[in-house]
Amino acid sequence: MPLDLTEHLISSETIASGGMLTVKRDQVRLPNGHTSQREYVLHPGAVVVVPVMENGNLLLEKQFRYPLRQVFIELPAGKIDTGEDILETGKRELLEETGYRAKHWVKLGAIHPCIGYSNEVIYAYLAHGLNAGAHQRDEDEALEVFELSMQEMLAKIDAGEITDAKTISALFLAERYMKNNSL
Amino acid sequence: MPLDLTEHLISSETIASGGMLTVKRDQVRLPNGHTSQREYVLHPGAVVVVPVMENGNLLLEKQFRYPLRQVFIELPAGKIDTGEDILETGKRELLEETGYRAKHWVKLGAIHPCIGYSNEVIYAYLAHGLNAGAHQRDEDEALEVFELSMQEMLAKIDAGEITDAKTISALFLAERYMKNNSL
Repeated sequence: MPLDLTEHLISSETIASGGMLTVKRDQVRLPNGHTSQREYVLHPGAVVVVPVMENGNLLLEKQFRYPLRQVFIELPAGKIDTGEDILETGKRELLEETGYRAKHWVKLGAIHPCIGYSNEVIYAYLAHGLNAGAHQRDEDEALEVFELSMQEMLAKIDAGEITDAKTISALFLAERYMKNNSL
Repeated sequence: MPLDLTEHLISSETIASGGMLTVKRDQVRLPNGHTSQREYVLHPGAVVVVPVMENGNLLLEKQFRYPLRQVFIELPAGKIDTGEDILETGKRELLEETGYRAKHWVKLGAIHPCIGYSNEVIYAYLAHGLNAGAHQRDEDEALEVFELSMQEMLAKIDAGEITDAKTISALFLAERYMKNNSL
């Protein structure tokens, strides 16, 4: 019989809210009958897009990420709005952040970035057949859009210049999909 | 001239602490001069280990992750204790969780799992030359240790059965290292 690893909710409280993050603290019953507590961030979910250009290059962003006080190279991504279809989130974020629209969208799968202390799930899409337009970033959204070939992007991962887990994971899924489907 | 994307601290407050998570809310000055606020989790950093057995199989864990109410397949990993050397964290976590010790440790790089709202960094190691022993899990730590071949693990990623971003990212780094070094 497989081990039952499930932890059961006893009670729940909100320890931070009102700003950007909602943080919960739950009392739980462990599989061995002991009690413990779990703290975690509530997240609406997000979408990450792997945009592949006609020449095979990938569209990327440089963005300052305050928690680490550092500029990161990332794939376009963003949070799902309340009630929004996840494919629409992908299309909206790609357009807003880069100005591109894509003819073809392929669902690659889901990624969980932070299973220890967040319920965030990130849905990954491959977008190809791209058409350039004007980005629709609001004036407080500072980011730089640029292109890399797949080889250049892999070299930057090897060199430790790309370390964002959603970007590495989504690229992994995209690379396997493209290999398996001769894209 | 490259765009300056830096956001500067104006003031900082702690909005949750005392339990497992410390959460900060900082007022910041954006590159365009506007002010905004950033909320994020303070994290001590962690280590993830890719343990490769003599037969080429990888050592994995099944663990219930309460924020998502779901059992995940993960590589062994754990938080860095205060003042602890990161390689020691890797050795300690591998031993505690699986009972294995490794003769050879290779640093693969760093991963940032959650750049939007956490300062967590996860250092990834490849461990090979493994010797089995007894695990040292405390009685509240419920997890199941098992093996998969690289092909089985990749198939589980393709099938959406492995979705943990640190696990996918560390495997990506390990696979590239092993390919480049004929391991």
